[in-house]
Amino acid sequence: MTGTDTPAGARAAYRSGLIAPTSGHASGCTQANLVILPRDWAWDMLLFGQRNPQPVPLLDVTEPGSPRTELAREADLRTDLPLYRVWRDGELVEEVPDVTDLWRDDLVSFLIGCSFSFERALLDAGVPVRNIEQGRNVAMFRTNRDCRPAGRLSGELVVSMRPVPAALVATAVQVTGRMPQVHGAPVHIGGPASLGIAGLAKPDFGEPIEFEDGDVPVFWACGVTPQAALMASRPPFAITHAPGHMFVTDVPDAVYRQP
Amino acid sequence: MTGTDTPAGARAAYRSGLIAPTSGHASGCTQANLVILPRDWAWDMLLFGQRNPQPVPLLDVTEPGSPRTELAREADLRTDLPLYRVWRDGELVEEVPDVTDLWRDDLVSFLIGCSFSFERALLDAGVPVRNIEQGRNVAMFRTNRDCRPAGRLSGELVVSMRPVPAALVATAVQVTGRMPQVHGAPVHIGGPASLGIAGLAKPDFGEPIEFEDGDVPVFWACGVTPQAALMASRPPFAITHAPGHMFVTDVPDAVYRQP
Repeated sequence: MTGTDTPAGARAAYRSGLIAPTSGHASGCTQANLVILPRDWAWDMLLFGQRNPQPVPLLDVTEPGSPRTELAREADLRTDLPLYRVWRDGELVEEVPDVTDLWRDDLVSFLIGCSFSFERALLDAGVPVRNIEQGRNVAMFRTNRDCRPAGRLSGELVVSMRPVPAALVATAVQVTGRMPQVHGAPVHIGGPASLGIAGLAKPDFGEPIEFEDGDVPVFWACGVTPQAALMASRPPFAITHAPGHMFVTDVPDAVYRQP
Repeated sequence: MTGTDTPAGARAAYRSGLIAPTSGHASGCTQANLVILPRDWAWDMLLFGQRNPQPVPLLDVTEPGSPRTELAREADLRTDLPLYRVWRDGELVEEVPDVTDLWRDDLVSFLIGCSFSFERALLDAGVPVRNIEQGRNVAMFRTNRDCRPAGRLSGELVVSMRPVPAALVATAVQVTGRMPQVHGAPVHIGGPASLGIAGLAKPDFGEPIEFEDGDVPVFWACGVTPQAALMASRPPFAITHAPGHMFVTDVPDAVYRQP
């Protein structure tokens, strides 16, 4: 039992200065993507999530100015992630471990489901997860599929790709299809060219993943999609988590698995 | 084949002046609750739906001022429902068959899932639907459970109640649990007193439904919940459908059934 084995312990460690990827911390608890926007842009993001629930599954949305979320009532969203990214006019300007100094009364936080939850469910069902086996960040790709725009927010769908043995692709569909709040069933199986992906060896984000004989590429909607929309749509100010440095919630992963 | 057998035919009939409950029209196509609010209040309603997905499952939200929806691309939301209700400061002021004269550039329309879709699924699974058998509107009750508030919008959960034979209650849970976008699984089974319901013979909305021997009361989150929140929270202006006079979409009910 180390300090990061429980969600409250992990958040306390990050609050005290630990900067580390959250994968493997507080095992069994849901981790979430974070997007923070001024109230003036929050309508656009809330509607973008409503219209694009696969890439942007909203788990909670806060009151303007409040750093509190239902997903972890004791947490403070300004301090309790290990690392944040600060964006101005769609450009990444800095990475910081605390955003208290940047906080404003009009900021609204969006907590968004993350594929960490379904990777555990895949493993439980006997589906190998190659990026975990290979100790790499998952491979992510821009696609030729546009999200449905919302107000000033628009952008293309970003997908994560995992190689899955052909005999287990149907299992992977069924397992993740029961978890719509953490991206749900794959959006595309095989045929990367028709998604506009030229080659699987050069992902746009993350790292390339090796295929084993008989593996098929399976594509899921990815939580990087809202960050890509921010980069394309250029709101004057935004804060997000840094990749892999997620918000650790108190909610068991099992809550997001449908029977 | 009459004029109301297809969704486009039904909408054209209402547009031409037919005022009638939509139950049984365009069989197999999803019908939706409608709430229209000024942009200034739309954030509150969008967040209210995000936070209360069982009573307020949002199927589509329009651009401000636009009477168009993805659920039926040729439809006009100002004319294509048989009957509308107009609300000012939380009070019902009139029922009209057309709201073109009341339209404003800042109005946002919310299309919300409706239990008509899951009643068909229950019948398909062999679960009797007593309100249909008895030719009555379903019984609806206010409860002692508050919705999670959102901005200025708050109110209690409203439920619909259907008597279900004890041996088929589990089937009813499983069938409707696979349809989260049309209210999903029941919120309460048996024990009306602990929901704050004094007696099942006197519903707050709709009509009382007769029980047969061995029936158990089963309670689902109800699409009247957002109307109750409007009445409690008193936005200066709102338009809704009139009860039972729903928006007929082009979307097959099967789209909202999960495998």
